[in-house]
Amino acid sequence: MSSPSPPAEKSTVLVFGAGNFGSCLADHLGDSSHKVYMWSRSEELVKHFNQCHRNLEVLKDHAFSESITAVGPEFPSAELIQNMDVLLFAIPTEGVRETLTSLKPTLNESKLPLLIFVNKGVEIKTRALTLEIIADTCGPAVAKAATFISGPSFATESDDPIGVELAGALKNVYAIAAGMAAGLGFENNTRAMLITRGLAEMTRIGTAYGASPLTFLTLAGVGDLFLTCSSSNSRNFTVGFRLGKGEKLDYIIKTLGSVAEGVTTAKGLKAIVDELGVVAPIASGVYDVLYEGRAVSERANELLSLPSIRELDLSVEGGKPAKRLMEKLGVEADA
Amino acid sequence: MSSPSPPAEKSTVLVFGAGNFGSCLADHLGDSSHKVYMWSRSEELVKHFNQCHRNLEVLKDHAFSESITAVGPEFPSAELIQNMDVLLFAIPTEGVRETLTSLKPTLNESKLPLLIFVNKGVEIKTRALTLEIIADTCGPAVAKAATFISGPSFATESDDPIGVELAGALKNVYAIAAGMAAGLGFENNTRAMLITRGLAEMTRIGTAYGASPLTFLTLAGVGDLFLTCSSSNSRNFTVGFRLGKGEKLDYIIKTLGSVAEGVTTAKGLKAIVDELGVVAPIASGVYDVLYEGRAVSERANELLSLPSIRELDLSVEGGKPAKRLMEKLGVEADA
Repeated sequence: MSSPSPPAEKSTVLVFGAGNFGSCLADHLGDSSHKVYMWSRSEELVKHFNQCHRNLEVLKDHAFSESITAVGPEFPSAELIQNMDVLLFAIPTEGVRETLTSLKPTLNESKLPLLIFVNKGVEIKTRALTLEIIADTCGPAVAKAATFISGPSFATESDDPIGVELAGALKNVYAIAAGMAAGLGFENNTRAMLITRGLAEMTRIGTAYGASPLTFLTLAGVGDLFLTCSSSNSRNFTVGFRLGKGEKLDYIIKTLGSVAEGVTTAKGLKAIVDELGVVAPIASGVYDVLYEGRAVSERANELLSLPSIRELDLSVEGGKPAKRLMEKLGVEADA
Repeated sequence: MSSPSPPAEKSTVLVFGAGNFGSCLADHLGDSSHKVYMWSRSEELVKHFNQCHRNLEVLKDHAFSESITAVGPEFPSAELIQNMDVLLFAIPTEGVRETLTSLKPTLNESKLPLLIFVNKGVEIKTRALTLEIIADTCGPAVAKAATFISGPSFATESDDPIGVELAGALKNVYAIAAGMAAGLGFENNTRAMLITRGLAEMTRIGTAYGASPLTFLTLAGVGDLFLTCSSSNSRNFTVGFRLGKGEKLDYIIKTLGSVAEGVTTAKGLKAIVDELGVVAPIASGVYDVLYEGRAVSERANELLSLPSIRELDLSVEGGKPAKRLMEKLGVEADA
């Protein structure tokens, strides 16, 4: 297998997914003189997009570059895929396994395109990170060639891709918690406390998972956590904020107009936390509100009355999930 | 020496300093039914306060509780001091050595009051933290009995008082940097980067100093850093913001109406960083703008173009300043 080369100045890019993030990325790439295809499962969206250069579902007022071609609703052909320099996956984590299963037979492993994943989450049923889903569906060679965009930096700069993926996925759950606190009327002091304890919690979970604790101190960790928890633009923060204001989850999801990955990640994270036996009161609190019908204010008061603790009590055991994933990748655990 | 007992419900408290923080604390304590004295060096302020229950210099519109008595301009008498349950020091770090030198002969070491320090800084000339200034002027017994308020928590809950003091002092310098970025028009992404790299820088400096890196991950570390760097109420953030907007430091200090400890701390910190040989581009950048006449925008561009680094590269050597301080306290370095 040859290593994928960095994309040329004028690359051909196929974006999987025509949601908010996928459309934005396609638009930006289109404006940057790349040849861009965008795949959607909606026949109506594809037709309308190619006629009017507008997306029927998101960013409705935006005129997209004419250099972008929508494809679908059928899965893109092997011929199209093999002509791409870059495949960019902008689909929710829950859809990645199905998409990659369809993709696998079309891939030419001796000439892999650059594979970029922007989703951040944990697959609910398997508790798998995206890296593990890729390994499961396409094998270790493809998984090792994959690139993740997380926070303000590329994960390929990191020697701990598992930690970067975990940090990217988990921070969405803490952004829901920060949104809840803001919706309930708590101010910056509480947010600072939530971010501090959220960072410690993420680091504990990551370390028990087998990631490096230092990864959680990088831009992809605390940097992205801080940004997502401070931004009313964040969809996950917005979900929490509206829950804090008393809206129902079903209604929020129906009217949000885009996916908030933290909502599903909270479910996968709950399974991970239970499996690893990590103390994670914030993640558990978010889960209880989203899936157990617990009142936001009740869980918030429980969290705020937790005793003062040494925030960072790192587990020195654990690391099983990362070891399992390393085995799937055919990598030595200490490599 | 007897350990100081926790203050009783109705305590007598002497607040040293009648600036913003001292007045707020005196006011809050006065409202909480404690008997409160507040010392000021200004004869005019003391007279006016006792006549009108108003502070001539700060919080001018606020009517203070009548249970607060201003004392001064002479240093409080030994008799007054020995009747106090609590001495609360709300004076800038640069004034602590002089105040404690005057205080020392009045202290009854067999019946020490509770000593609480709220200043956060590094003494410029000696590079000493407050704990070291106390040890120098009043001896190790008094230093070990002292309590520090830092961030949203009491430092006595920590087993690393040096780390808590350092974090409290240093975060003011990073708040100036965050303010500068905001004043220059940079937004949340840049602030997230500054906080992430500021946290790493603080942790590197702290570790080289001999503090525990974990302390920088607690509420007194990242929590307080996040809060101060996000708050336009922070005086240090405001100094940076106004510098970013093009105002001159002299004018800002003259019109600020209260002390921003980060301005002097930047100078003491520069000496510490040079002594320890720690890479601290943000702290150095703030120093250069404050004291070397460098343009804010120029230093900001240099900081933003720094190569992507592994944020946390902890020094494993070092620790000399903390060892020196431990010796002054008569404590074994590993105690």
